[in-house]
Amino acid sequence: MAEPATPRFLRPLAAPGAELGHAITFDAPLGLDAGRSIAPWTCAYMTYGSLNAARSNAVLVCHALTGDQFVIGRHPVTGKPGWWTSMVGPGKPIDTERFFVICANVVGGCMGSSGPAETDPRTGQPYGLDFPLVTVRDMVRAQAALLDALGIEKLLCVTGGSMGGMQVLQWAASYPDRVVSAMPIATAARHSAQNIAFHEVGRQAIMADPDWRGGRYAAEGTQPSKGLAVARMAAHITYLSEAALQRKFGRELQDRAEISFRFAPDFQVESYLHYQGSSFVDRFDANSYLYITRAMDYFDLAADYGGTLAEAFRGARTRFCIVSFTSDWLFPTPENKRIAHALNAAAATVSFVEIESDRGHDAFLLDEPELFAAARGFLNSVAQSVGA
Amino acid sequence: MAEPATPRFLRPLAAPGAELGHAITFDAPLGLDAGRSIAPWTCAYMTYGSLNAARSNAVLVCHALTGDQFVIGRHPVTGKPGWWTSMVGPGKPIDTERFFVICANVVGGCMGSSGPAETDPRTGQPYGLDFPLVTVRDMVRAQAALLDALGIEKLLCVTGGSMGGMQVLQWAASYPDRVVSAMPIATAARHSAQNIAFHEVGRQAIMADPDWRGGRYAAEGTQPSKGLAVARMAAHITYLSEAALQRKFGRELQDRAEISFRFAPDFQVESYLHYQGSSFVDRFDANSYLYITRAMDYFDLAADYGGTLAEAFRGARTRFCIVSFTSDWLFPTPENKRIAHALNAAAATVSFVEIESDRGHDAFLLDEPELFAAARGFLNSVAQSVGA
Repeated sequence: MAEPATPRFLRPLAAPGAELGHAITFDAPLGLDAGRSIAPWTCAYMTYGSLNAARSNAVLVCHALTGDQFVIGRHPVTGKPGWWTSMVGPGKPIDTERFFVICANVVGGCMGSSGPAETDPRTGQPYGLDFPLVTVRDMVRAQAALLDALGIEKLLCVTGGSMGGMQVLQWAASYPDRVVSAMPIATAARHSAQNIAFHEVGRQAIMADPDWRGGRYAAEGTQPSKGLAVARMAAHITYLSEAALQRKFGRELQDRAEISFRFAPDFQVESYLHYQGSSFVDRFDANSYLYITRAMDYFDLAADYGGTLAEAFRGARTRFCIVSFTSDWLFPTPENKRIAHALNAAAATVSFVEIESDRGHDAFLLDEPELFAAARGFLNSVAQSVGA
Repeated sequence: MAEPATPRFLRPLAAPGAELGHAITFDAPLGLDAGRSIAPWTCAYMTYGSLNAARSNAVLVCHALTGDQFVIGRHPVTGKPGWWTSMVGPGKPIDTERFFVICANVVGGCMGSSGPAETDPRTGQPYGLDFPLVTVRDMVRAQAALLDALGIEKLLCVTGGSMGGMQVLQWAASYPDRVVSAMPIATAARHSAQNIAFHEVGRQAIMADPDWRGGRYAAEGTQPSKGLAVARMAAHITYLSEAALQRKFGRELQDRAEISFRFAPDFQVESYLHYQGSSFVDRFDANSYLYITRAMDYFDLAADYGGTLAEAFRGARTRFCIVSFTSDWLFPTPENKRIAHALNAAAATVSFVEIESDRGHDAFLLDEPELFAAARGFLNSVAQSVGA
């Protein structure tokens, strides 16, 4: 493997004083499920806390669709706090004073790991759509190579929500001997028809933007910002719940006493969505959005095991804690329970926690004391059992 | 009022052999909630069955966002059957052998009634965004003028689903003495924050399309087809249910045995959405979509009555039958129950039917025997009570 390099994507974007993180560029090809491989390829990552002498306290955090490796601390692009400051940090449920936390930008992503926004070494131009499509299994394969490079054989825990949870399940299936415990949150073992449909709407919005230029916008100096904003707005609704939207915004108007009889945003919920859309395009690559949504659509863990999900976990000694939220309609409790049932059928050790919350799918990122208690208890128990 | 005219929008589009329907052009201005008025203005409509001598058997059907006056029979643009053939027709619950069924294209629509696609008489050009924004109350005001012109004082029943149901509620509130009975289906007395959010995504998709041209596409010879298709795709998901999508499509692939590792539609649910999007743009005007979604967003019946929904129905002698579907997450049962509670508080006569169905919001358009039984029973009872 080559010398660690600063991720290309971060250099022009980095906010002053923010941590740029680490990256390893591998010369050995990364074989992908699409039947192609990439070489050289880069894995950008962050670590928090210290690896103990026994190398037994590593916790891998897997990020969701629009997340990245900056779990806590100041984000180098947005300047805002990382995406999981509620769960990770000193004294937090995933306690960086006890655990060595690793998070890697997924392959296909846009925060320094190889993806469509990065330069194709064969051409010197951004990959764009020449980057091969990736799967959740490819993401996990890349993370395994990273851990090899870091000299970490076993993970005390792999955890993450949403697409992060898909990676957790894939880790447990692909590398059962490396995963002591797994905590998938608000996820599913397969992407549902409704979720595929919402993703396709987002992709169509991006690809309908003439500034997308067939994916070659980086080379042509454009940005499909409007299409990406529409995609984000549509997706963002699915991350919340009707109750949360009603409670936060209801029918309240934005900076006015009466409706305007115009098409500009009248309602607070519209202004909020506009903000979500416009701030997203400043930090995320449109092609990466296409690639990562596709990877989620393709995720169907059982399909790799003859259609029986339990077979993915047959013989597993990994301990599982599965978490869902009552108002999550993107990855609803039944999808999470389906995982628990499969684990039971595979005679694995599994606990299942459904948390009452009206905050929808995003609850896993928010201040949810029951989540914190479940995670803290599970990690304590697992750490004790292995003496970490 | 001027001579009845064939709606302009239909003339170039009409499918051979299809009924073009009726239209009345009014010279007297139609005053709108936006504080503006339109004149002359046109109301395009269809009737089915015969008005009895006592003029006591008229049933007004109100159409939803993307519906129109072609309730049954062959649609003049699509050549397909009308949108409510399950409910309306000879021997159907709304029996055209007994009842005189009227349905008018809403003001702001694009099937012959005045709206942004029609010609602005002041300029000779399509209105585009110069058409004033309309409300559900404006739609109902236009329908009342139509009924005046047809010499129909009382409606045996006003019914419709979704935005049609909003019009039903507005009819009962605005013209209580003209409405013998009202059957709002799968609707709400106010549009929720989540629904406003989904509508805003659709509007942003349309307005992001460079072929929208600030609403002047008709004059400039373009069509924001891609944006409108994305809007329709996003909306269409909300008309179904997760269970229905899973049952109909699951993760089945379209015309292939394996995923393609491309961005073309791999899954049947994607192909289905594409079809919904592309067929919609052939029959619907993008600006009308903006106007009508806005009218729904603005709908909050209680707001016109001091914030207390019951006040909208105070003293009503109208009989109500309210219908919801268990899997409808766009207009869920609680929103429909809220109407029933307000009617109870106003001491109105109301029955409430929640129908078990996994087909989501679209259930009101589909073969739902419980809906048919409820509608038939309600209409029979109302007709008997007035001797119609």
